[in-house]
Amino acid sequence: MLNPRTKPLAALPAAAIDNPCLIAHSQQPYNAEPPTHQLRASFVTPQHGFYVRSHGDIPMLDPAAHRLNVGGRVDAALNLSLDELRSGFPSRTVMATMQCAGNRRADMQRVRPTLGDPWTPGAVGNAEWTGASLADVLRAAGADEDAALHVAFDCADECSVEGKTFRYGASIPITKALSPEVLLAYAMNGEALKAEHGAPLRVVVPGYAGVRSPKWLHTVTVQDTPSANPIQADDYKLFPPHVTKETADPTKGITINGLPLNSAICEPAPHARLPPGPTILRGYAIATDRNVVRVDVSLDGGRTWSQAELEDHRGSPWSWTLWRATLDLPRGEHELAVRAWDDAGQTQPALPDDTWNFKGYLSAAWHRVPVLVE
Amino acid sequence: MLNPRTKPLAALPAAAIDNPCLIAHSQQPYNAEPPTHQLRASFVTPQHGFYVRSHGDIPMLDPAAHRLNVGGRVDAALNLSLDELRSGFPSRTVMATMQCAGNRRADMQRVRPTLGDPWTPGAVGNAEWTGASLADVLRAAGADEDAALHVAFDCADECSVEGKTFRYGASIPITKALSPEVLLAYAMNGEALKAEHGAPLRVVVPGYAGVRSPKWLHTVTVQDTPSANPIQADDYKLFPPHVTKETADPTKGITINGLPLNSAICEPAPHARLPPGPTILRGYAIATDRNVVRVDVSLDGGRTWSQAELEDHRGSPWSWTLWRATLDLPRGEHELAVRAWDDAGQTQPALPDDTWNFKGYLSAAWHRVPVLVE
Repeated sequence: MLNPRTKPLAALPAAAIDNPCLIAHSQQPYNAEPPTHQLRASFVTPQHGFYVRSHGDIPMLDPAAHRLNVGGRVDAALNLSLDELRSGFPSRTVMATMQCAGNRRADMQRVRPTLGDPWTPGAVGNAEWTGASLADVLRAAGADEDAALHVAFDCADECSVEGKTFRYGASIPITKALSPEVLLAYAMNGEALKAEHGAPLRVVVPGYAGVRSPKWLHTVTVQDTPSANPIQADDYKLFPPHVTKETADPTKGITINGLPLNSAICEPAPHARLPPGPTILRGYAIATDRNVVRVDVSLDGGRTWSQAELEDHRGSPWSWTLWRATLDLPRGEHELAVRAWDDAGQTQPALPDDTWNFKGYLSAAWHRVPVLVE
Repeated sequence: MLNPRTKPLAALPAAAIDNPCLIAHSQQPYNAEPPTHQLRASFVTPQHGFYVRSHGDIPMLDPAAHRLNVGGRVDAALNLSLDELRSGFPSRTVMATMQCAGNRRADMQRVRPTLGDPWTPGAVGNAEWTGASLADVLRAAGADEDAALHVAFDCADECSVEGKTFRYGASIPITKALSPEVLLAYAMNGEALKAEHGAPLRVVVPGYAGVRSPKWLHTVTVQDTPSANPIQADDYKLFPPHVTKETADPTKGITINGLPLNSAICEPAPHARLPPGPTILRGYAIATDRNVVRVDVSLDGGRTWSQAELEDHRGSPWSWTLWRATLDLPRGEHELAVRAWDDAGQTQPALPDDTWNFKGYLSAAWHRVPVLVE
């Protein structure tokens, strides 16, 4: 499944990452998320506190030697050094939330087991990404802009998934690739990308699941069909609840691009022991391509609701919305809950069982946090 | 609240409409929907079988005398006859579904009473609309295109709502008004508009609730703020479940523009008595600005699901998706259910109680149809 145009790259063995700011679900590949109370500490998530999802070793690439190839259905293929990418295209900055398709999978796994790591609500972060606009690069190459086309990305990381070994690849529809918010990013929060976040070059596709924002990018191809890479063709598909690992036909699953409305309580923590009285709840809500217009919180598992206060969104259409609320908690056991509403009047399903699927993707029911007030 | 620029129009008393294809909830104003099995009979809803929502008498306007005014923040105000609108601007046709914000309110009212007519799933229809592009007309007038502006519509119908009498008005953000799908429509399914559908001129805003597609249009105004008309400023706001008619502050409600993901079973009818064996279910699903990618059906109220077959969407991004499924029904009482999924992986809440609000807007939980198999 290796793309024949993959060029030899200077790749070093995986970094043995030991980031004390993250909780690792797996070390090989390195998959880790921040504690959710830490996640809520700032509108912009620092790079060292940003979740990491990898599918294999983390390549250590030499920025000076790295090249970006752009080809396929283009008039003039490009082969650019990073310096040429930086100097040849305007630098653009987009504030955007990145979220893993498996974020909050642990909630779904409490209903029934699923495949995949048990992410809590921390497989998400909000950063200021800087890079070249993918549209600018595609247009410089004279790309065919037919709306039926796809833009494929090939990357340096070697993945091992279910016995197959291949280098990572994925694709997005060209209509999204040409949208101004999509970047070929070389910086995050004003810093060079760290190795685990895709140094020296990654794709950032705001509004789409993290899987469509590949790291360690070396090749962009305009083509008639979605990427044939297993990441695109087999994994990251959404199936109905009756489908199992054994019966799943990847060609029948829904390709996960956009993400559903989601929200989470970051504070207090699950099973917190609290004194009675006013308690501050803090969390996030995400509407991807829409806007969060209301967040409701409950102290009784959703039987009654009150409205949270939405914090400043900084006018960033691709960012999460942080919220806070104060609830007066009496003594006893309580189930705190949150649900968001978007500007199409859409809200979240109530129960993880309402969206359960065997891969545990798109877990986006009301987030519930049991607490004891004593 | 009358817009001072409202011109005298030749208006006759309300038509005493007696349409045998529709079921009327109220005659004054005339509010009526087709039986849901009839709704599902065709991809394009015939004009005589299309739901009617009015807020007062139905004006009978003289097309030869009718004028369209375009003003406000424009370089050159326009005053056009219908002939001038037809000859001066390219005719555009858009296939689009129109849906009332109160569609399926009856499901919500079974949980707790709400204000408003008890619409079943028939307050929706799909038509081929023809008219001038609103963007073309705004640009001909040299409208200011600042994204913070609004485009207000003033209409000839006199409304009586909660003791107030006023002529209908509403507005949409200018960013939507400039989108190519928004029409000033004079025809529906290739026919002139009937009186109850807004003859001789109405707005059609695909993807938005019907309230933002005013009928009997005479004035378009580009302005700094949303319309001050009670329809825009007071009604058609979404409130949290703890808010009542007495406590509602209209300035705090969410303005209903886009609509949430929805679906309905049109056949079999509720409480149908059926023979055992394979039973065909038919219905619709609507994702407004997104696409319906999957529809699930259940014979046990949502404990287990199977996939419906999606019928040809005719490549129309603003239209509903019709679906069908065959379920093998054993003898006994069953609760059929349907839920849709959109291309952001969003699905519907399970219970009407999950979205209940005192005005009964945006009822979009799984649609459930009890049947008896004997």
